[in-house]
Amino acid sequence: MQKFVDARNCDFERLSLITLILKSIRFRRIEIMKAILVVGDGMSDRPLKELDGKTPLEIAETPNLDKVARAGVCGIMDIISPGIPPGSDIANIALLGYDPIKSYRGRGALEAFGANIPVNEGDVAFRGNFAYIEEGIVIDRRAGRIDGTIFKDYLSEVHLPSHPEISVTVMPTLEHRLVVVLRGRGLSWKVSDTDPHKDKVKVLKSTPLDSSEEAERTAFIVNKLSEELADLMEKHPVNRERAGRGLPRANGILLRGAGEPPAIKSMRELFSIKGGCVSATPTVRGVCRYAGFDVYDAPGGTGSINTDTISKAKTVEQILPDYDLVYLHVKGTDNASHDGNPRLKVKIIENIDKMIGHLLDHIDLDETYLAVTADHTTSCTAKDHRGDPVPVAICGPEVRSDSVALFSERSCAAGGLGRIKGMDLMPILLDFLNKTKLIGS
Amino acid sequence: MQKFVDARNCDFERLSLITLILKSIRFRRIEIMKAILVVGDGMSDRPLKELDGKTPLEIAETPNLDKVARAGVCGIMDIISPGIPPGSDIANIALLGYDPIKSYRGRGALEAFGANIPVNEGDVAFRGNFAYIEEGIVIDRRAGRIDGTIFKDYLSEVHLPSHPEISVTVMPTLEHRLVVVLRGRGLSWKVSDTDPHKDKVKVLKSTPLDSSEEAERTAFIVNKLSEELADLMEKHPVNRERAGRGLPRANGILLRGAGEPPAIKSMRELFSIKGGCVSATPTVRGVCRYAGFDVYDAPGGTGSINTDTISKAKTVEQILPDYDLVYLHVKGTDNASHDGNPRLKVKIIENIDKMIGHLLDHIDLDETYLAVTADHTTSCTAKDHRGDPVPVAICGPEVRSDSVALFSERSCAAGGLGRIKGMDLMPILLDFLNKTKLIGS
Repeated sequence: MQKFVDARNCDFERLSLITLILKSIRFRRIEIMKAILVVGDGMSDRPLKELDGKTPLEIAETPNLDKVARAGVCGIMDIISPGIPPGSDIANIALLGYDPIKSYRGRGALEAFGANIPVNEGDVAFRGNFAYIEEGIVIDRRAGRIDGTIFKDYLSEVHLPSHPEISVTVMPTLEHRLVVVLRGRGLSWKVSDTDPHKDKVKVLKSTPLDSSEEAERTAFIVNKLSEELADLMEKHPVNRERAGRGLPRANGILLRGAGEPPAIKSMRELFSIKGGCVSATPTVRGVCRYAGFDVYDAPGGTGSINTDTISKAKTVEQILPDYDLVYLHVKGTDNASHDGNPRLKVKIIENIDKMIGHLLDHIDLDETYLAVTADHTTSCTAKDHRGDPVPVAICGPEVRSDSVALFSERSCAAGGLGRIKGMDLMPILLDFLNKTKLIGS
Repeated sequence: MQKFVDARNCDFERLSLITLILKSIRFRRIEIMKAILVVGDGMSDRPLKELDGKTPLEIAETPNLDKVARAGVCGIMDIISPGIPPGSDIANIALLGYDPIKSYRGRGALEAFGANIPVNEGDVAFRGNFAYIEEGIVIDRRAGRIDGTIFKDYLSEVHLPSHPEISVTVMPTLEHRLVVVLRGRGLSWKVSDTDPHKDKVKVLKSTPLDSSEEAERTAFIVNKLSEELADLMEKHPVNRERAGRGLPRANGILLRGAGEPPAIKSMRELFSIKGGCVSATPTVRGVCRYAGFDVYDAPGGTGSINTDTISKAKTVEQILPDYDLVYLHVKGTDNASHDGNPRLKVKIIENIDKMIGHLLDHIDLDETYLAVTADHTTSCTAKDHRGDPVPVAICGPEVRSDSVALFSERSCAAGGLGRIKGMDLMPILLDFLNKTKLIGS
């Protein structure tokens, strides 16, 4: 990229032929634009009593986010529609420009594909936990946060005697978490969880969530599989040893978040976009993979509150030359919000701000659009997602900059973008990249 | 509610056990939020020559509405979509959060249910007038504003000899007005009025408004019923007596506004919301009943220009402890607008402002969201509904307050809500009440 910058500084009077060549290069530069979309997970919030009626974004020291807002065009954005709280899965689908309601088919496949386990059209995937269960009651739904990867080989050949036509993949991921993929005909993602999502209650039976034969059959299979997995896990020698040491056994598997691949085409196919993603969060990685993006790890990018945001910025800086668009996601702000910890949220926002600072210092803003937003509002009071709009700011060569000088929920509401929908942001960026298609003629 | 207010002011240091109990109450308070939605019927207007280019809202002295705007987040709202004038029926459907276009099935059922006459799925209801008709020409479409309740018993057993399978209910309501409900199979609300809506023209024949067999059959039944009712009314002794006194006879019934129940589920079913409604306007009461709200009268709440707005506020104050959400509707502003009387409209707006003042003084704003808006713009010049957006302001514990300091059509346009749709307002309020459901996971 550096050579184009040099080209602009040449003495064109002195160079005749070279001038022409360079001019043609300069002309081409207009066409080659890049974009970075930075998503702070649940970064948006409500005014909080604990912060004297300010939001964490308003309290945090964010000179670089403010620089983006000041140089750019700002607005607020309803990820789905006003007042409707989106989950992280559907929110990132919307931010990638897809109609979230039409495209969404559950979280399981996103999570699995994000963890490098392919889930194809027709497969149904689940998130799961190794859990400690006694007489049908969940004692510890994380089995003492056991490292489940020790069961990887043991679970690599699970069969369902009742349904030999269904292939089953069980793949431990991080800590007590795992992914299960069912493959075979006539499956549906419209089935409920076996995970009751809390301890000291009964393990649930999966039930069909619509009236289709496929959902009924899938729920039946899930229940059979759960029995089969409980039998297998009960027998595992580690559990005898853990029982001896007074540790919660991992004698069952709880499943949740059934999902098929989202009903989307890759952005390469749709817009000839080459996309990269920097995120440590499986769901986000999964959504991006289904969108056709290459997914990168940043060293020290933990997907948690201690993530190394500068490392994430450096990774973006490194991969940007190879991509039209890079999707940069930071999870920590959401974790702090779910914990009801606004002060921690402020701190992580300040780390995100430093990440933005690194990007501003190291990318060429003459050929790069930089957009910053959140995938949803997470209220530190409610400790959950809420339907308030999120702020958005876009800076870059040809944005219609407005008078907004601060990046926050309230300041951006006065911006030149007005109030847009989540699925509108990506077309706006693609349009700056000259990648949108004319409708009509 | 008062006890919660006291709880917040307790000296927790001095009280040990009680402290714990009160703290748990305080904790619960976060979840137990309430909302009041105040709707000034047709309160929104255009800048008027007679008011030196100001709107009635801009001219009126409204310190309390302005307080809501100043403390809250403001915006403008297209009840259906920009430029489209909504009727009161469809507008209130939208304000309750339903998709107005998909849900709407005419006014008749709303009006009937609002007047305590149940209209069930499949029934078709009409509004009607007792009218004076000579040789098929409408002489007085209100029959001298006759009190139609004197015909109540006389009309209680109307039969249709041509269609014995259809049951007919005719119920006089206020003055010359009545409601007719048809019950039986294969009816449709897609039929036109027999009421020509003005005097000195022919009574109309009802015609089908779509190509369905049901609409054709219903129109046929409506015309038969109109003949039957005219025969009955012609014979009534009161008419002989009125003729003798030179008064317009009530010798016919004009029908209008065919409607089936709106295609909506109750908000209790959808969101576990317990809703109350304070309104004297049958259509609004009907919409709220279909939304599953309990409907209350306020003493002196007339549904007209002389309504006692303070009494309405007191009624809200009384019922609020029993409800999650109270819908408070004041009709008078619309009446003044239809009469083309901007000065009267200003006066009624000032009465609405006093009502808001009473609410602000008597509700606990730490646990209540207060929203104010109009159901449509009614132009005092056009004396009819217009498609301009309406102003909206929401104040309450965690709104993202903006810099708007006055409640009016123009000032609210600069607010933090931006421009939303009518059906978006209720999800925004439900989200503050922690009653929305996450989409995705």
